Amino acid sequence: MSIAQHSDPAIQALREWDQSTVETLQRILFNDDYDKLAKWHEVLKDPIFKHKFLMSLDEQRELAMAQIQKVADAGLASIYNFGNDPKNIFTAHEILGQVNGSLATKFTVQFNLFGGTLQALSTERHAPFLAQVDSLKNMGCFCFTELGYGNNAPKMETTAHYDPATRQFTINSPTVASQKFWITNGAKHANFAVVFAQTHVAGKNEGINAFIVPIRDENMNACNGVFIEDMGVKLGMNGIDNARLSFDHVKIPLENHLNAQNQITPEGKFISDTPKVSQRFFKVADRLLSGRLCISAMCMGTTKYLLYTTIRYSQQRLAVGPSGESDTPIMSYQLQQNAIFPYLARTLVYNLGYNEAKNIFADPRGRENEQVRIFCAAKCLVSWNLEATARTCRERCGGGSFLSSSAIPEGLQGGHSGMTAEGDNRVLMQKIVKDVLADMQKEQHRLPKMTQCPKRQIPALKSIANLETLINLTFYREVAEIKSMSKLMQKKMIVEGKKFFDVWMYEVSDEIQSLAFAFSERYMLESTLNVINKTSHAGTKALLEQATFLYLIWTIKNNLDWYVIDGVVSAEAASKVDDEFSQAVKDFVPFVNTALESFSIAKHPHLHAPIARDYVAFNAQPDFENFESAGKLFDFRNTGVPRPSAPRTSAKL
Amino acid sequence: MSIAQHSDPAIQALREWDQSTVETLQRILFNDDYDKLAKWHEVLKDPIFKHKFLMSLDEQRELAMAQIQKVADAGLASIYNFGNDPKNIFTAHEILGQVNGSLATKFTVQFNLFGGTLQALSTERHAPFLAQVDSLKNMGCFCFTELGYGNNAPKMETTAHYDPATRQFTINSPTVASQKFWITNGAKHANFAVVFAQTHVAGKNEGINAFIVPIRDENMNACNGVFIEDMGVKLGMNGIDNARLSFDHVKIPLENHLNAQNQITPEGKFISDTPKVSQRFFKVADRLLSGRLCISAMCMGTTKYLLYTTIRYSQQRLAVGPSGESDTPIMSYQLQQNAIFPYLARTLVYNLGYNEAKNIFADPRGRENEQVRIFCAAKCLVSWNLEATARTCRERCGGGSFLSSSAIPEGLQGGHSGMTAEGDNRVLMQKIVKDVLADMQKEQHRLPKMTQCPKRQIPALKSIANLETLINLTFYREVAEIKSMSKLMQKKMIVEGKKFFDVWMYEVSDEIQSLAFAFSERYMLESTLNVINKTSHAGTKALLEQATFLYLIWTIKNNLDWYVIDGVVSAEAASKVDDEFSQAVKDFVPFVNTALESFSIAKHPHLHAPIARDYVAFNAQPDFENFESAGKLFDFRNTGVPRPSAPRTSAKL
Repeated sequence: MSIAQHSDPAIQALREWDQSTVETLQRILFNDDYDKLAKWHEVLKDPIFKHKFLMSLDEQRELAMAQIQKVADAGLASIYNFGNDPKNIFTAHEILGQVNGSLATKFTVQFNLFGGTLQALSTERHAPFLAQVDSLKNMGCFCFTELGYGNNAPKMETTAHYDPATRQFTINSPTVASQKFWITNGAKHANFAVVFAQTHVAGKNEGINAFIVPIRDENMNACNGVFIEDMGVKLGMNGIDNARLSFDHVKIPLENHLNAQNQITPEGKFISDTPKVSQRFFKVADRLLSGRLCISAMCMGTTKYLLYTTIRYSQQRLAVGPSGESDTPIMSYQLQQNAIFPYLARTLVYNLGYNEAKNIFADPRGRENEQVRIFCAAKCLVSWNLEATARTCRERCGGGSFLSSSAIPEGLQGGHSGMTAEGDNRVLMQKIVKDVLADMQKEQHRLPKMTQCPKRQIPALKSIANLETLINLTFYREVAEIKSMSKLMQKKMIVEGKKFFDVWMYEVSDEIQSLAFAFSERYMLESTLNVINKTSHAGTKALLEQATFLYLIWTIKNNLDWYVIDGVVSAEAASKVDDEFSQAVKDFVPFVNTALESFSIAKHPHLHAPIARDYVAFNAQPDFENFESAGKLFDFRNTGVPRPSAPRTSAKL
Repeated sequence: MSIAQHSDPAIQALREWDQSTVETLQRILFNDDYDKLAKWHEVLKDPIFKHKFLMSLDEQRELAMAQIQKVADAGLASIYNFGNDPKNIFTAHEILGQVNGSLATKFTVQFNLFGGTLQALSTERHAPFLAQVDSLKNMGCFCFTELGYGNNAPKMETTAHYDPATRQFTINSPTVASQKFWITNGAKHANFAVVFAQTHVAGKNEGINAFIVPIRDENMNACNGVFIEDMGVKLGMNGIDNARLSFDHVKIPLENHLNAQNQITPEGKFISDTPKVSQRFFKVADRLLSGRLCISAMCMGTTKYLLYTTIRYSQQRLAVGPSGESDTPIMSYQLQQNAIFPYLARTLVYNLGYNEAKNIFADPRGRENEQVRIFCAAKCLVSWNLEATARTCRERCGGGSFLSSSAIPEGLQGGHSGMTAEGDNRVLMQKIVKDVLADMQKEQHRLPKMTQCPKRQIPALKSIANLETLINLTFYREVAEIKSMSKLMQKKMIVEGKKFFDVWMYEVSDEIQSLAFAFSERYMLESTLNVINKTSHAGTKALLEQATFLYLIWTIKNNLDWYVIDGVVSAEAASKVDDEFSQAVKDFVPFVNTALESFSIAKHPHLHAPIARDYVAFNAQPDFENFESAGKLFDFRNTGVPRPSAPRTSAKL
């Protein structure tokens, strides 16, 4: 085995990178004041953040708590950021998503669901309470979901009855199905909860309102009438102390009502700017919207971390080469490249789409109407992308990624959590379509602008492997899907006289999902094109264009039947797509290291998966739990340079 | 909300079943003496098999050990079954796959990899040793895989040097990369290992042989020179005590050589019927072949268990209905049906394909040549099907399936383990294609017989939604893929003069996978058709035909671009496939309960996931770890009958 053998172009390309592009792209992807990154990386030097796996359930929870306390103490994020620096909330989530999912989830509940709801629904009288949230002195839960009403929250059963005589509310869970379910921070660490309940004032149900309810006393014992049960062991992220909570006629003072939206006078008069009771639900549940961007941020951070780990491992993991010896990095195999690199390309594109959503959240002017569907699209696509990336990385790293220390298992678990938390993705996709169709009727849905008229021009083409064509095809699909969905709904409801519910739930499910994907993919693409157009840095432009090309041809390849059946892609052009996809992967290889380094993954050894560093050195140690000593960063510029399998230096490994 | 509303046909169909078909199909799927099932279910009544999750790593391992001991004590499986009742080995695996993955994995290593290797490679002199394996007195590991040679085992580095002076072998691990990796039963429970090593006799490397090596003494302390490290925490199945092992010049007597294939005389003469050294590897690694069927069996058992859990939960889990109340079972939604029922249909088909593989293993006469590719196909498709089923069930059950108690997480983890254990599926798929192409050259590959000539007839059809057409299209695909792959390889290697390794590893990866799928899906289909043709029971025939139809139209829908580009399916016919698929799902609904009951899942409460039983009753309890009291079996004939959300009977839930 000579080194010369590995100077072949396939392996050479795996070593390339460009520092100037790294620096430009790092800032673009970060999409916030880049100086914040160094501050975060300084905080993360604390050994409390070191990966640890061999722990009891209690230890896992206490570690996650110690970590969030360290984050809180560092003061880099605040619930007041919703007012003074909204992007910072998401920046924090993304960075914590690279550390671990339990920490990030406890953080999002404290700072967004609990803290953000307080921030949005509180008034002057709650200011002293809010002032203790950043420090975690007031640690909270978000008691929203009930066992029986996971997907139908407006029908929740928990009640808050106001009694003007005592100026108190009585919070009560009348049934088993009304227990608050999956409540993060509930099993261990919260002393307060924001509880959502059907609010009865002067004998009338005035709809859902939110209340601050103390759930634990200063000794962290459950308050009278508050019943808390641990949810038990989960698929993953067991550092989260999820609980189910129920309330047995718990009394709270009038002042604990979060009254920014609706007021209740001491005498028991309900005053609201929202006359329709059912509409009040959406006003108080507002944090679920930013929550979806928080989930995007966490999932995006985790996805980038996993890709970094998987690719760095695959660049050094040697398997069979032409001579039969184990001397060839698995990253050079087409099987590995075609499996992994499309996810890298898509993650870049989704990162830019998620960034635009973050920009819209920070300044929604002019796009208020689009917010819900864009945040849903970002949450769904980014969380599904995490699940699919993690699943693929897991499979393609074999045993290496079955170990918890690789952190790939936690990514998979995080993906699963993300795709059904705060709205099952499939249900959010339905929401997108409802919004798009409603806006189409009002002629308010902004359709993408095509530069070609695909129906006429593209079938004549012998190949679609051209960036402009791919963009037009992606835009075209949304337009065509909206048109066909509108027709289909009209046919079923008007011509066939069917009820909306029956058509929607029993007949057009797949069409809904397909249109929602077309919308969401187009949104991601447009956001990326906006960035490419604004970028003057040639290397960055080239990298992003190549990534976009790979992402698009992969996406179209995965939906090729639709394009061919529609007729917009000819059978001849379609027959070449597989080869064009494989070529696009090969063309992307020289950009891989630059893309990975632009993810700004912290280089601290204690935050890295050992398989991402020198995995042979890691395995030379006796004890997997103490892997810091395998601290040597893997140098990807040595990719494919075979090294001797290190001799055992002592009897004991 | 009236009950009448739920007498609509969609929900009615969810309640149907047919006992006579259940009884017939139970026996077909079981594919072994059905009386064995009752014996197994009797053994599983022992509370040791109760699901348990809140455990330390040590407790998880000790529980899995106690469980396998109980299984061993019951005497329902034996390593001698390889000779006297081969199917029984797989029956045991399938049933244990329904209990838990840690138990099933420890079992497969003891009874197949360790015990089966002993059975295959031992001679008379090892008989007393073998006699102590069934009882677990001799508990073993299979020391085959090394850190550096996961996918290139023939190059392993562990050595066994024979010394005629002492009549001993010295077993040694010379490098870090040569440590035996992922060794089940190693970290805790094994006292012996079968170790594979490069065997040096009289100064010559005679290739890989297997040796019995004591690794722990009677006090379960590691033997001199044997170094054992726990692999640590994993994605799942942490009851398995995986270890990495290395040997520092460990001496074993000559007799510990497993000498059925190759003999070594005391004087140091190596005698073998296999002159080619590299070929000896395949003879001693034989158990990996049955191991693939063992993995199929475990995965098949788990898949059926997950589908049972998911569907029973979805039939009682109520969400929003036409009135806006939470009164409609999610199983009636098209979204849930289109997501889950295709997996149920595919699992039935794969079960019959796996059964045929089991038959071939038990009696390979006439099909010796096909064994490897068929067992690979069974292992790959069945393990991928588990992963995909588990992933989909996880997503479609929301929070319910994120809890470990649902057992769906463990199914997902088991799928991940199955698809990369004992041969990464993608690599096994490559193996299938190598075998198929080699046999094609020798004109020995049996192609399926089409009853239509698709190229001429099918494009003229306005729809492919006909069982005979779907069968022909599936057969056609294999034929066409083989043809195009042969052409492609010829073009690249003969016309373009490229080397086999370069073409295979860098240029045609996706084509290889595609052909392997075409072969494997055809195999599964043919096996199913054989069963349908032999069945005289009308209900069973109807169910299996409907399942096959759904499986085929789903598979073809997922590969529709291939069919349209090939021209064998017209764009007009293709445009109808989405609707035809949805209709096929609806047509399958009345068979769902019958199919599920035919899986012969044990009804013992302690083996069921609580969400598969009465999940509201389960959540009325204070403590999730003691869920036996929620023992009421969910009666699917009540599907969709709304019930009041049970009132809280006490203050504490």
